[in-house]
Amino acid sequence: MFAIAIAQINQPTLQIVLLSLFFIYLASKIGGEITHRLGLTTILGELLGGAIIGVSLLRLVVLPGVSTLDDALLIGLIQQINPSLGSAALEKIFTAQGQILTILAQIGVIILLFQVGLESNLRELVRVAPQAATAVASGITIPLTLGVGGLLWIFGAEWQGALFAAAATTAVSIGISASILDDLGALTSHEGQLIIGAAVLDDITGILILTVISGIATGGGVNLLGIVALIATAALFLVGTVVLSRLIGSLFVGLLKPLEVRGGLLMLSLSFCFGLGFISDTFRLEALMGAFVAGLILSQTEIKRKLEHSLQPVADLLIPIFFVVTGARIDFRILNPLAPGGAKVFLIGIFLASMVVCGRLGGAFLIRSKTPLNRVAIGVGMLPLGEVALVIAGTGVSTGVMAPELSAAVILAILLTVSITPAWLRWALTPQKVES
Amino acid sequence: MFAIAIAQINQPTLQIVLLSLFFIYLASKIGGEITHRLGLTTILGELLGGAIIGVSLLRLVVLPGVSTLDDALLIGLIQQINPSLGSAALEKIFTAQGQILTILAQIGVIILLFQVGLESNLRELVRVAPQAATAVASGITIPLTLGVGGLLWIFGAEWQGALFAAAATTAVSIGISASILDDLGALTSHEGQLIIGAAVLDDITGILILTVISGIATGGGVNLLGIVALIATAALFLVGTVVLSRLIGSLFVGLLKPLEVRGGLLMLSLSFCFGLGFISDTFRLEALMGAFVAGLILSQTEIKRKLEHSLQPVADLLIPIFFVVTGARIDFRILNPLAPGGAKVFLIGIFLASMVVCGRLGGAFLIRSKTPLNRVAIGVGMLPLGEVALVIAGTGVSTGVMAPELSAAVILAILLTVSITPAWLRWALTPQKVES
Repeated sequence: MFAIAIAQINQPTLQIVLLSLFFIYLASKIGGEITHRLGLTTILGELLGGAIIGVSLLRLVVLPGVSTLDDALLIGLIQQINPSLGSAALEKIFTAQGQILTILAQIGVIILLFQVGLESNLRELVRVAPQAATAVASGITIPLTLGVGGLLWIFGAEWQGALFAAAATTAVSIGISASILDDLGALTSHEGQLIIGAAVLDDITGILILTVISGIATGGGVNLLGIVALIATAALFLVGTVVLSRLIGSLFVGLLKPLEVRGGLLMLSLSFCFGLGFISDTFRLEALMGAFVAGLILSQTEIKRKLEHSLQPVADLLIPIFFVVTGARIDFRILNPLAPGGAKVFLIGIFLASMVVCGRLGGAFLIRSKTPLNRVAIGVGMLPLGEVALVIAGTGVSTGVMAPELSAAVILAILLTVSITPAWLRWALTPQKVES
Repeated sequence: MFAIAIAQINQPTLQIVLLSLFFIYLASKIGGEITHRLGLTTILGELLGGAIIGVSLLRLVVLPGVSTLDDALLIGLIQQINPSLGSAALEKIFTAQGQILTILAQIGVIILLFQVGLESNLRELVRVAPQAATAVASGITIPLTLGVGGLLWIFGAEWQGALFAAAATTAVSIGISASILDDLGALTSHEGQLIIGAAVLDDITGILILTVISGIATGGGVNLLGIVALIATAALFLVGTVVLSRLIGSLFVGLLKPLEVRGGLLMLSLSFCFGLGFISDTFRLEALMGAFVAGLILSQTEIKRKLEHSLQPVADLLIPIFFVVTGARIDFRILNPLAPGGAKVFLIGIFLASMVVCGRLGGAFLIRSKTPLNRVAIGVGMLPLGEVALVIAGTGVSTGVMAPELSAAVILAILLTVSITPAWLRWALTPQKVES
């Protein structure tokens, strides 16, 4: 009965979660401090720290789906501490810790987007929307058309795999992009807001593209009605919240007025963020989008400064979990240039990354603007691929739609785009780079 | 493939977690504000808010183990949003949300104990240790002996069930106790520190008692070697960390010195807290104990104030999850005085709560002290039963060792002790109550 009581309060699961968080924070701090000192951003160090404790190297933080139970060193430790646990129980603990870390990482990126929304300027975002649309149109079209073409005719890929690999390269990682901008102090600049606006649009169009392509590639056909519904709900949600933002914001602030107990502001603001996150997720828009809109609405209210202040420690704790877990998910072992076909993976990866660079920079230079614009910074700011590309690469292989070498090439493209962005963006943001 | 990609990023699980957190925060805020205005503590309102959204009433936050899938309203909503989910998938989502909320609640109470340790005074705790031991000895002995006797001879209970029910009433909820003290501004007072010291000792002896009793009641016999090992590791861990606390503290502060990136202090401090939590859990001491010791070690360092400041928003967000989820776990429906045997449940519950009051107040009055002591406050501060009693009541029924009416009576005793504590303690802490 003692054992049962203990099991009910989830002791082994708690043990592995505590230990995982211990290593995640350590990796995040060590990695972040090193890259910060090298003049790169901390985010890169957090991703690398994650890669080091992840499936590729130390195997301390290992997630189901990417790896199996045998890969997980901490599960072995938990088994030694609790010798009575059978393999079925261990499998359950492995699944549970994977779900818990995944959800914590997702809450981390939701908080990140909430913070980005809170620091953004709705008026500015609406103003730059047409320019952002131009940037996104090119940023998506070039990697998709030239990418598919190149994969088919230069590298002889299957057409379904080529479609998915190219689609993966259209997805700007709004989380990584915003963090790098914030780290360089450029989030609230005109260019920063243009990049954020473009990344938001890119996220929505990315979902549309994925829906269409999965319809084509799996032979299921394209559900036109579904796409129209998706566009309609997305537009309704975004336009509705923007139009009603002042009203919702002042209603919310009114709700806070009578509160007396400490912590009410932060708690109800996050409740609002999670609620809008749920609604946008239900509209198939990703929870991130709702969190961003929630931040944007509260950015127009008088509570903005106070909320930013108390949100900061929470953000400092949760956002790194997202970056470290994302890094831990990447299996670097598939990037071996000496393996058969390894050199080809590198060529394809570099090709895909180049298409991303062409698309994003091309988009930035196509923007019409009456005022001077730092076009290089805008293009570079949209380079980072991230978690969406990672998911596409992962599911592409597991469903057999994508050849393993193509998936590895997509992962290489993610690494290349994320690695070159910080230094290039810092260079692009030095004052003399502004051109008219 | 789109569906698979979406499933891999855990969309329905994320949806239900976001929605659960939304309701948890709302219930916590509404309940806490109401009881705060009534002059009771906020914690009581958070527990009641949890009870209202929990299995007893609205069934919005419902956990596996306590309830089944059919009880969970939010699972029904998730099914409507994602019609393609089968019952097996829903069962998995139900399990996952239960695990995630349980772990978040556990992390909440870990942070609470870390904060309590950080605000405590090691020198004072060591000084009051003998007094605390007296209080604990009586606080445990009276409910255990008189409790078992009464249950057997007055209420005619089975002896195994009586043993477990009485054991459940020996467990002081250190989390609820500390929160009520903090709310009344009495955590750092002499009486507050004595209560905290006693609650820590009670937690350790509680684990010993549970081990012995489960050995007796299940006929497995008492593993003397195991008990000696438990006492030895507990003593080793506590004495070791206390003796080495200055050294560990200054080593830790030295580690922080070279950090440049924002958030390092908070992140590494929590890493330390989670690491010690893991170690104490491995020693079968509950993770809470490690978190408390981690806080105690850092309370002696120069970073104390800065850490308290940045920990506060994190604590404000995570601790209420613990109280709301604890409230949501309580099934009030079993407390129906009109049901057959319902009146008897009430009598047993009131009897058990009275034994708790006798034991804790008796203990407080047995303390030897040369200085004036607010003995009523000390006794009352140790009244709250909590999550440990809840777990014992739950497993008692599910394993068949405890009759359902006994389990219901234990739950009633938890509710009674937690409900009377805030007002009684506030009254006891008014200045004229100090006696020599």
